Amino acid sequence: MSVIFGRNPVLEALKSQREIEKLVVIKNGEGSIKRIERMARESKIPIQYVDKKALDRFAGSSKHQGVAAQTSPYKYYEVDDILARASDKGEEPFLMILDNIEDPHNLGAIIRTADGAGAHGIIIPKRNAVGLTETVGKASAGAVEYLPVAKVTNIANTIDKLKALGLWVVSCDMDGELYYEADLTGPIAVIIGSEGKGISRLVKEKSDFVVSLPMEGNISSLNASNAAAVLMYEINRQRSCKK
Amino acid sequence: MSVIFGRNPVLEALKSQREIEKLVVIKNGEGSIKRIERMARESKIPIQYVDKKALDRFAGSSKHQGVAAQTSPYKYYEVDDILARASDKGEEPFLMILDNIEDPHNLGAIIRTADGAGAHGIIIPKRNAVGLTETVGKASAGAVEYLPVAKVTNIANTIDKLKALGLWVVSCDMDGELYYEADLTGPIAVIIGSEGKGISRLVKEKSDFVVSLPMEGNISSLNASNAAAVLMYEINRQRSCKK
Repeated sequence: MSVIFGRNPVLEALKSQREIEKLVVIKNGEGSIKRIERMARESKIPIQYVDKKALDRFAGSSKHQGVAAQTSPYKYYEVDDILARASDKGEEPFLMILDNIEDPHNLGAIIRTADGAGAHGIIIPKRNAVGLTETVGKASAGAVEYLPVAKVTNIANTIDKLKALGLWVVSCDMDGELYYEADLTGPIAVIIGSEGKGISRLVKEKSDFVVSLPMEGNISSLNASNAAAVLMYEINRQRSCKK
Repeated sequence: MSVIFGRNPVLEALKSQREIEKLVVIKNGEGSIKRIERMARESKIPIQYVDKKALDRFAGSSKHQGVAAQTSPYKYYEVDDILARASDKGEEPFLMILDNIEDPHNLGAIIRTADGAGAHGIIIPKRNAVGLTETVGKASAGAVEYLPVAKVTNIANTIDKLKALGLWVVSCDMDGELYYEADLTGPIAVIIGSEGKGISRLVKEKSDFVVSLPMEGNISSLNASNAAAVLMYEINRQRSCKK
């Protein structure tokens, strides 16, 4: 975990738009802490309030002046970087959009499998989702160093942009066509929903079509990373068989 | 977690061959504790030695008389139960053999996806692997209540038995044929290796053939549950397309 602490370092990080996963603030903080809190709230950064002891522990120091921030140990990319990667390889774009994955092990496993299946990158939302934490990096078996992950403010806007660029946007949900009967060989972005709530309505409505995995047993859905793995390798299979 | 405690209850559980995941014993225990330890060792049950405070906490009581045991909250099946399930459904057997999966989240996700893909059951080894703990049950989203899991003493012997019954035993490893080019429609048992070490040599040598997932990126293998998911749904796809 990368942690910065002290009022000025945290303020500078907030100003520089450096990726901040979480702000940790002492309870009843005064002075410039109020300003830091306001900036964090404006940037939709989660704030956690703790007592001095907990903050000492989190910062690994008592010289935190009442505030510390957890930053991402990994670099984020832009959606354009991911698209450039596809065109550099002379391949049709193959992107994954994760609509609010919360479990770092799931995100890590998806990044790892995306690297294996030949996806060009992953798009995650800025809010309500896990970012590139150390746990994610570990769960990805290091794939996070190779596979670009872009963090976007608004998934719906990103979908519009991808559609305008000619990508097919596909949701994975329960009421779609059988995934292996759909043609997944063109330029594509596949949306995987969150563990608990699935895909949000707005995002699903924006997608070009919906694919489903057959559920032969008693359970109605798969673990998010398992569902993503099946879809990513089906895209890989269809593309390889078409060559 | 299901915990029993007290010398007689634990002794009875050991005698009755009820599934015990772990024995927790007070350091320097005397009298019948020695006998309990011996029985647990003979049954290859892991023993953990703790002080009185830790044992109080584990048992949720101070009336443990120096010993407590963690039992499985779930029932195990026999391999024959799994095969009977396939024949009851009039389907070719479709089994998964997990060669020492250690992560309960992986085991839970595999059980969940096996239920979805239409597998008839899962075989896990008695030793060096995670059993059906509450964490596994939770990660399976309840699928552990529907999909039979058998625990066997010796995976290699079980493979011999399955081969004698006409099943194709397939290892998933790095140097095999492309998984989607293999015919996976017959009676089949697929072996998935452990997270760290993959499939053990003896088990791999016993298998009829080896299949591989293409790895297009920089990472050399997938998360065990993701690899299992891709294979299970390819079996499902091939079988559905053949109908």
